[in-house]
Amino acid sequence: MAVELDSITQLQPVAGVKLATCAAGIRYADRSDLVLISLDKASTTALVQTQNRFSAAPVQIAARHFNIAKPLALVINAGNANAGTGQKGVDDALECCALVAAALDLLPEQVLPFSTGVIGEHLPIDRFRDAVPTLAKGLDRHHWVEAANAIMTTDTVAKGESVQVKIDGQLVTLTGIVKGSGMIHPDMATMLAFIATDAPIAQPLLQQSLELAVDRSLNCITVDGDTSTNDACSLIATGKCDISPIVDNRDPRYKKFQFALRDLISTLAKNVVRDAEGATKFVEINVSGADYDACKSVANTIALSPLVKTAIFASDPNWGRILAAVGRAPISSDQIDMHEVSIIINDVSIVQAGELVSDYHEADGQAAFNCTNLKIDVRVASGNKLATVWTSDLSHDYISINADYRS
Amino acid sequence: MAVELDSITQLQPVAGVKLATCAAGIRYADRSDLVLISLDKASTTALVQTQNRFSAAPVQIAARHFNIAKPLALVINAGNANAGTGQKGVDDALECCALVAAALDLLPEQVLPFSTGVIGEHLPIDRFRDAVPTLAKGLDRHHWVEAANAIMTTDTVAKGESVQVKIDGQLVTLTGIVKGSGMIHPDMATMLAFIATDAPIAQPLLQQSLELAVDRSLNCITVDGDTSTNDACSLIATGKCDISPIVDNRDPRYKKFQFALRDLISTLAKNVVRDAEGATKFVEINVSGADYDACKSVANTIALSPLVKTAIFASDPNWGRILAAVGRAPISSDQIDMHEVSIIINDVSIVQAGELVSDYHEADGQAAFNCTNLKIDVRVASGNKLATVWTSDLSHDYISINADYRS
Repeated sequence: MAVELDSITQLQPVAGVKLATCAAGIRYADRSDLVLISLDKASTTALVQTQNRFSAAPVQIAARHFNIAKPLALVINAGNANAGTGQKGVDDALECCALVAAALDLLPEQVLPFSTGVIGEHLPIDRFRDAVPTLAKGLDRHHWVEAANAIMTTDTVAKGESVQVKIDGQLVTLTGIVKGSGMIHPDMATMLAFIATDAPIAQPLLQQSLELAVDRSLNCITVDGDTSTNDACSLIATGKCDISPIVDNRDPRYKKFQFALRDLISTLAKNVVRDAEGATKFVEINVSGADYDACKSVANTIALSPLVKTAIFASDPNWGRILAAVGRAPISSDQIDMHEVSIIINDVSIVQAGELVSDYHEADGQAAFNCTNLKIDVRVASGNKLATVWTSDLSHDYISINADYRS
Repeated sequence: MAVELDSITQLQPVAGVKLATCAAGIRYADRSDLVLISLDKASTTALVQTQNRFSAAPVQIAARHFNIAKPLALVINAGNANAGTGQKGVDDALECCALVAAALDLLPEQVLPFSTGVIGEHLPIDRFRDAVPTLAKGLDRHHWVEAANAIMTTDTVAKGESVQVKIDGQLVTLTGIVKGSGMIHPDMATMLAFIATDAPIAQPLLQQSLELAVDRSLNCITVDGDTSTNDACSLIATGKCDISPIVDNRDPRYKKFQFALRDLISTLAKNVVRDAEGATKFVEINVSGADYDACKSVANTIALSPLVKTAIFASDPNWGRILAAVGRAPISSDQIDMHEVSIIINDVSIVQAGELVSDYHEADGQAAFNCTNLKIDVRVASGNKLATVWTSDLSHDYISINADYRS
């Protein structure tokens, strides 16, 4: 079960975006697994994708189409990643786009395909042929929650968020959904996320806005260090809100929008960690004192240490494992001074100046580790940058989920 | 239980090396946890230690003493790492050496201390005061197996190996013992290992010999990616065998010795993996086609992927996870050509030219994954270097061992 997180039941619609879902029978019985999203013709779209070299066929086709035409539809399936599927996988992804294009009277290049699920199996393309025409008839602006449910794989709760912000006296809406639970590591989007706003924002400013927000949100979470072949995050701006277009990153309205976007994507990112496979705890790791990249490297080393993660699962205040992880982080020696290292967990100071705090009591450490939400603050030197990474613990259920079920 | 590995019951003594063990009550009840090793005065010694920045007090003192004097005694305790213990930890390590020096009539600088166990607790130094004088009286050349037992922490079997090789018509003996089970990753010795030979080998040739052998053995195993604060491997050459000293690396006798040493240390290294925490399978990963460092990086990425490790635990031929791990390995793009990638598991060809082999049958993959010993051969491009990494699967027992017990 997700860590202090319930399935969403309500999201704000975004003018200019319509969604439809259905149970196409791609992998799962008795649940929706296919989503169609159509966009108003005036929309601009931004896209970031996995950096994994073995990108799936839909990732390749989405990138190609994104460079050719303005996207006006997205088609997403869960249960099958269409990855490692060779030329037939590419042909299948192209046919998905062609089916959507035919149903919505678009060019195939105006359609972006997304897939998530098992790697190495071919898409049951006949199921798409049956489902897409029906889907196209069910498009509705109120189907965000249904879409959040339909894109789930090992997720245990449907995840999404809406934010509203006043710009030029108008209420601007941002709504996003996300799926992701395992195979999560900061190397781009590390899951599927779809966000839309009715603000009018020009491309490439929208692209810049998305990349900035992702860099400090989705790219700052890790569950198991494994990056997916299928990750993608797309941001759509329909421009339906009645304000003049935002085209410049010096525009104060852009800063306001960017702040709201980062807030929204951070919530989506943290909710992915709360729903991490087998998670029983939610952990925020703040590392300060070195440059940003070094701080993030130390934070990731702690976040990915199986020994740290199992100690957190066990509520065992075994801080030595955190110290050992800091000690092996792959950063240059001028970024860390072991005589300045400090570790504070949920406000309990455990290590100062590289040594155990003299009046530290294990009972205090125990109380901190007993919490469901852990905040680990590590200082590695006297610099002034800080990086934050969110992660989960490593539990028996992580093993069960990934050993007993082909996800 | 260890994967197809039993506790050793016999090891060849090495002339010039005597050992003693006792139950000093450092952490465990009813078992030996303290080892003393004394060396003949003519011995040369080589030493490699952890690269973790937070090296434990005994690691620091061993390095200091090693640079000052020729080692003539080693003292090793299990159950307490004396790491993260500040100045008192350093003082305790120094006192251990002084106690041994007094008992054996040596300088404290001629003693190397080693500790393994829980991080962040002070050594019960009074137990050492009681035990060391008695230990010194029990020294015997036949106590190698007892020593292998006494240095264990979460190890389930005592691990060691003897090799004999004829040089100049004389039988040269090499005997080594090792402890290590978790917190294992190639970043130096990644455990404690003590090896002795009666061959006469000059320092620094002995040091070079050890570093070369460790680089392709102990530095090629990984269990969980966590490096210890206390790792060390020491190689002793007593010179008691009746051949003339080996002082030059062009000496053909050196090559013969080096071959035997690498063979011995590789066995020790692989046995650590067979006894890895929670291991149910032993996995050899061979990556070829790029330069050595890139091959090793890909091999480590596969070896450390929790998703690959859980699939192996489950005997699930989920080869897509291996492909995804190859795709995210941190190597430069000129070292990999995804259209040349191949994956063969226990001689079952699964991926060729970056795609699923057309006549691959899941039943064949299943048969390969059902094996207790897995060999994963990955080719990433057309280069001619190869790197091998040995690892284990990730099981429920790994979680239990590290969550339920403070190791």
